[in-house]
Amino acid sequence: MKKKYLFTPGPTTVPPECLLTMAQPIIHHRTPEYMKIFGEVREGLKYVFKTENEVLTFASSGTGAMEASVSNLLSRGDKVIVVKGGKFGERFAEIAAAFGVDVIPVDVEWGRAVEPEVVRKKLAEDSNVKAVFTTLCETSTGVVNDIKEMGEIVSKFNAVLVVDAISGLASVELNTDEWQVDVVVSGSQKGLMIPPGLSFVSVSDKAWDLVGVSNLPKYYFDFKKVKKAQEKSDSAFTPAISLIIGLRQALGMLKEEGIENVISRHACLAEATRRGMSGLNLELFADRPSNSVTAVKVPSKIDGANFVKRLREKGVSIAGGQAQLKGKIFRLAHMGYMDKFDILQMVSAVEVELREMGYELQLGKGVQAAEEVFLKEIV
Amino acid sequence: MKKKYLFTPGPTTVPPECLLTMAQPIIHHRTPEYMKIFGEVREGLKYVFKTENEVLTFASSGTGAMEASVSNLLSRGDKVIVVKGGKFGERFAEIAAAFGVDVIPVDVEWGRAVEPEVVRKKLAEDSNVKAVFTTLCETSTGVVNDIKEMGEIVSKFNAVLVVDAISGLASVELNTDEWQVDVVVSGSQKGLMIPPGLSFVSVSDKAWDLVGVSNLPKYYFDFKKVKKAQEKSDSAFTPAISLIIGLRQALGMLKEEGIENVISRHACLAEATRRGMSGLNLELFADRPSNSVTAVKVPSKIDGANFVKRLREKGVSIAGGQAQLKGKIFRLAHMGYMDKFDILQMVSAVEVELREMGYELQLGKGVQAAEEVFLKEIV
Repeated sequence: MKKKYLFTPGPTTVPPECLLTMAQPIIHHRTPEYMKIFGEVREGLKYVFKTENEVLTFASSGTGAMEASVSNLLSRGDKVIVVKGGKFGERFAEIAAAFGVDVIPVDVEWGRAVEPEVVRKKLAEDSNVKAVFTTLCETSTGVVNDIKEMGEIVSKFNAVLVVDAISGLASVELNTDEWQVDVVVSGSQKGLMIPPGLSFVSVSDKAWDLVGVSNLPKYYFDFKKVKKAQEKSDSAFTPAISLIIGLRQALGMLKEEGIENVISRHACLAEATRRGMSGLNLELFADRPSNSVTAVKVPSKIDGANFVKRLREKGVSIAGGQAQLKGKIFRLAHMGYMDKFDILQMVSAVEVELREMGYELQLGKGVQAAEEVFLKEIV
Repeated sequence: MKKKYLFTPGPTTVPPECLLTMAQPIIHHRTPEYMKIFGEVREGLKYVFKTENEVLTFASSGTGAMEASVSNLLSRGDKVIVVKGGKFGERFAEIAAAFGVDVIPVDVEWGRAVEPEVVRKKLAEDSNVKAVFTTLCETSTGVVNDIKEMGEIVSKFNAVLVVDAISGLASVELNTDEWQVDVVVSGSQKGLMIPPGLSFVSVSDKAWDLVGVSNLPKYYFDFKKVKKAQEKSDSAFTPAISLIIGLRQALGMLKEEGIENVISRHACLAEATRRGMSGLNLELFADRPSNSVTAVKVPSKIDGANFVKRLREKGVSIAGGQAQLKGKIFRLAHMGYMDKFDILQMVSAVEVELREMGYELQLGKGVQAAEEVFLKEIV
């Protein structure tokens, strides 16, 4: 017998209610039955995104929606600001380059949040900038950026603000309309608790103006086509039916808990994880840590890649570092379908495995620190 | 109690074995466990596609892979021949136009197969044509095109042959390598028996040469990125994990039956369906009918849209006509997870419903004709 535990920052655990709903016989999508389901999904997405705007839905992984936000908003030769500072920030720059868009990079040291003032200066320097691209939670470093402040800044310019919230939506606070975030990109396999294969984009009126003049080629990810179909609860192309049906269930669960409570739960679970790690004398990597994933520095003398591998072989999936952070950090997700008892298992797994690998720690200290958070707070 | 019957040309019924496999707890994709599964899927796809070439896999619906075959093979201003003659042939022309590619159309009357000689003439007229786009089975009209002949013709020119086999793969004969088909596009929700959300493209060496010089923008659908990752059984972007796991199961079932037997089963089910319709004095729409879907002319005095609606309300999903064929035909799929008893239910449903709507027919005649096919043939 080997039980499996999934503590990776996407995919996250899918609730059994959703798995069983998706295991029902498939239905056709050009039917009143499906359209009713999709209508509920559209409403549920607006609720979670905190927007009045239509949330466009695609059958693709998150990167597809990132590409869509480039190809639909921009024209060849347009200038955009891209906040780097992690693997996913850099991906926006790669996509823009692939589509012939000029990138003004904001280079941020990996593990640090962007300073919104830097973006303000770059915007002030060049009135031709059409968009600012940034991540909400940079999954590769565990950093959460100050999107509220960014929204305030960008809204004063002609540019639109595009936020990759793939691993932040429904786990980290994000008030799309209130904060004046023009475009929010997300995916199904993180806070939304569904298997990967769906991606989403919310689009403000200011952003639709850019869509109107964009000349970059697109077809499958064409915002106008997709919006036109969605407004009739129809789909431009065959949707990923089973995932949409699972998503309706997951959105219902988020609605029932209440999105504010969902966000507080993540804050509490994240705090317990961070305290747990500190209780083991481990150092956090991010200067502004996200409530969706915690990046922890691998202690010296421990082989980081081996640590992740050994845990996996025991049934516990956590994530290592990516790209330049390979072997240097490990990442613990507390995102989606997780409660405090999951956190205790996760902290305990780290504790026991590090000790087995020869790291000096007092057994139970990490778990104790996490429990203290839970006893002070309401989950 | 209302049971449901799915006789639509995609999505098709998902076998319970696949549904249950997909309902298991999700796993992470950057793990040996997932890579082993994906390795088996890669092999299974080559078997079904009848190719030695890598079959690239995307998280998207079929249209995404159609777009990919345009954006990866071509450059701005390139000339291509597109066989129209149905909704999906026309989609290739729309995609090419969206990407700034010049389309030389081959207009075929809806319901007729393309005459390969017409394509040969157009190729001979212009040595700059880079590619010929056509469908294998045109789902909107129920026509199957002569891809073997097309392959023989196109292989003598510099152009590559791109075939949309979304609703033909694993139901209609298609010998990719033997017939010299350079690019085959497909999707998960037809003959492969899995919910929609996965798409596929096989790419010949001749086509890879075009990929090498293509300058159209792409990122999410970038063949080179995807191939590089797949060769390590890895994925360039987060894959649709649950669908891949279901697909492994479905590919195993196809392998066990044997692809030649799968194709013969479809031939037999299609023949029974056609004879069943003729037994009711109904006329077929396609001049070269596909073994994946049968298009039938709606008899005069019967409201075609209402016929489809009434059946649906009784739990039986069939498809009506699309675009210019709305109300004029109905379409019965015999694709994927179907056997002879399914065909009998389907023919009977048509028989009973048409009679209820006032069409004169002798009850049982359609079913009888279908049964006669089954008694003469081995399913």
